[in-house]
Amino acid sequence: MNTQSTLPTARDKLLFTPGPLTTSLSVKQAMLRDAGSWHFEFNAQVARIREQLLHVAGLPLGEEWVSVLMQGSGSFGVETALTSSVPDNGGLLVLTNGAYGDRIVQMAVAARVPHEVLRFQEHEAVDPAAVDAALAKRPDLTHVALVHCETTTGLLNPLPAIGRVVRERQRVFIVDAMSSFGALPIDFEAVGIDFLISSANKCLEGVPGFSFVICRRERLRECEGRARSHSLDLFGQWRGFEKNGQFRFTPPTHALLAFVQALEEFEEEGGVAARGARYAANAKTLMDGMQALGFRPFLPSQLRSPIITTFHQPADRRFAFDAFYRGLSDRGFIIYPGKLTAVDTFRVGSIGRVFPNDLEQLVHAADRTLRDLGLPVPLPAETAG
Amino acid sequence: MNTQSTLPTARDKLLFTPGPLTTSLSVKQAMLRDAGSWHFEFNAQVARIREQLLHVAGLPLGEEWVSVLMQGSGSFGVETALTSSVPDNGGLLVLTNGAYGDRIVQMAVAARVPHEVLRFQEHEAVDPAAVDAALAKRPDLTHVALVHCETTTGLLNPLPAIGRVVRERQRVFIVDAMSSFGALPIDFEAVGIDFLISSANKCLEGVPGFSFVICRRERLRECEGRARSHSLDLFGQWRGFEKNGQFRFTPPTHALLAFVQALEEFEEEGGVAARGARYAANAKTLMDGMQALGFRPFLPSQLRSPIITTFHQPADRRFAFDAFYRGLSDRGFIIYPGKLTAVDTFRVGSIGRVFPNDLEQLVHAADRTLRDLGLPVPLPAETAG
Repeated sequence: MNTQSTLPTARDKLLFTPGPLTTSLSVKQAMLRDAGSWHFEFNAQVARIREQLLHVAGLPLGEEWVSVLMQGSGSFGVETALTSSVPDNGGLLVLTNGAYGDRIVQMAVAARVPHEVLRFQEHEAVDPAAVDAALAKRPDLTHVALVHCETTTGLLNPLPAIGRVVRERQRVFIVDAMSSFGALPIDFEAVGIDFLISSANKCLEGVPGFSFVICRRERLRECEGRARSHSLDLFGQWRGFEKNGQFRFTPPTHALLAFVQALEEFEEEGGVAARGARYAANAKTLMDGMQALGFRPFLPSQLRSPIITTFHQPADRRFAFDAFYRGLSDRGFIIYPGKLTAVDTFRVGSIGRVFPNDLEQLVHAADRTLRDLGLPVPLPAETAG
Repeated sequence: MNTQSTLPTARDKLLFTPGPLTTSLSVKQAMLRDAGSWHFEFNAQVARIREQLLHVAGLPLGEEWVSVLMQGSGSFGVETALTSSVPDNGGLLVLTNGAYGDRIVQMAVAARVPHEVLRFQEHEAVDPAAVDAALAKRPDLTHVALVHCETTTGLLNPLPAIGRVVRERQRVFIVDAMSSFGALPIDFEAVGIDFLISSANKCLEGVPGFSFVICRRERLRECEGRARSHSLDLFGQWRGFEKNGQFRFTPPTHALLAFVQALEEFEEEGGVAARGARYAANAKTLMDGMQALGFRPFLPSQLRSPIITTFHQPADRRFAFDAFYRGLSDRGFIIYPGKLTAVDTFRVGSIGRVFPNDLEQLVHAADRTLRDLGLPVPLPAETAG
């Protein structure tokens, strides 16, 4: 093995991805420690994280809301919330317009959770009226799951309007806010959220290793005995924290120490408003620059989020995504491939410890890479994809 | 929040725990980078880890064996292996003599895996003859699960003898080698192992964040469609790696970079033999020192492992575990509480980046702490617990 490759001898490439993303050096430096997962000093940090997450969510400490941390990726948290909350004699309505909504369907299938799917096109938002009609017809669907920002495309679903429908129909509302929590304001009470899942390595700019579920305590209590897995048992995990402040199973101690630092830097920046404003400035810089190069966004502006943007690949045979990707990588910038089945696209994230200036540099690198591939810049309208 | 608490301003306390454990500074420094989880340079590291794990296991690269990495703690890996391999029309025989064997039972219950339990006392090894008798009676039990080193007590079960029985009875053998893999030699072919689970943050001295399953490929192929969870799907995870070299869901990128470094340091030290020898020297230093102080080990010597040792708490009302623990913590040493239901014990781990000299210092700190508590040193035989 080659030591060089694991040591920070070269400047790290900037990540324009939906996470794992570029984090601050101070967040990473917080991992230069080994903490005992049973030790009281570490447990105090875990307790602080759990409280601070409620603060980020704009929720009071106290009886009504709790946050539960779960080892693994964000998807582990989503599966935990779904499969721990829907009872065998209930049912889940999955609203989907992308790969992450579809993943929820796969989770329900694997864990044998009774469910129904309401599917929309990848370029259209989930329609609250359709949700209302589906719930009206099917009283057996006791729970509803929605992906807030569909990272497949960057589409932002109309969370408040859907939440209103779900609440009026008196169903339990589970929101996958993986890539939006911490950057976009979410009013838990107004929306009527019961469970919201997000992850350490998204807009809160920690490192990957765990996810978290913010739960309405009354709903969480109902989860006792409903889980389909011992590891992914939301109620069990909560009871573990309540009992002795500890994770039931080994936690990612270093990722948690990094998250303490990430939360501090989040507050220093100015919380949700400031972080959302920076990401919006990032996304605008990206969009202006890429459009000037002739790239065409996949979504109309009213459906776009400031989290990640999907662009069409230019319809010119000189454009090959792999070569474009590698050209940007050689210049120190990592973008993200597309995830759409029918259209050739690529994606660029605007979250993480990156700033408008970094997006400007990325656009400049895209300009140079297009020229290297022999493409005209700006791309003529007919080749913009 | 207080920045101080997350910065390495003080010397870290040494961890004498079964993991998360003390790691080298160079392993932690490998985390001072942000890697793109989709990026080809990172995928090359993941591929290297997967190959290197087979090397540590003494297995050839090629068609017969594969390693699959799984996000989350070691228990997530155990649950993944169990619930992905036992079919609905099969059955699992769980051999247990401690909390980790019992956890396997809880996993089978939660995921509704048909199973039977063969339980032994916490101070006795799993008996191969009893396993043979149980399998003879129950042809429906197609799979057998065993915890190699029961961290509850430190008891080392007789893996080769049990493996022989399981193989002769032609059952699938699943071994939880969480705290033994990398330090104790395990002959996969001779024992007849089909699935072995361990974790990054045990004897290979990485940081927590993922586990791994070393699988006989022929058995892994049979797992298709058997999983009870989308996240904890062993076959699905493997197919993801085979398809594009990537984790299906966000991996703990920093923990993986740390593990590349940890594996390198493992080879530099001299592999399984050298690491096992160091841990054995650690455990002997600990045992000699603690016995000189009058502490009495819970297990007879022939059942003990060099991983973690359980001691009786002195039967003197001046001894309170919390005060003893805190006294050691104040001196910079973190030990582990007992996990036995019937007897008051505590545990001391001898794995991680610690050396016989560190165990000597720990014993010295225990000496001082006993005196602080007003106890006689050495403890008189009648109070040794």
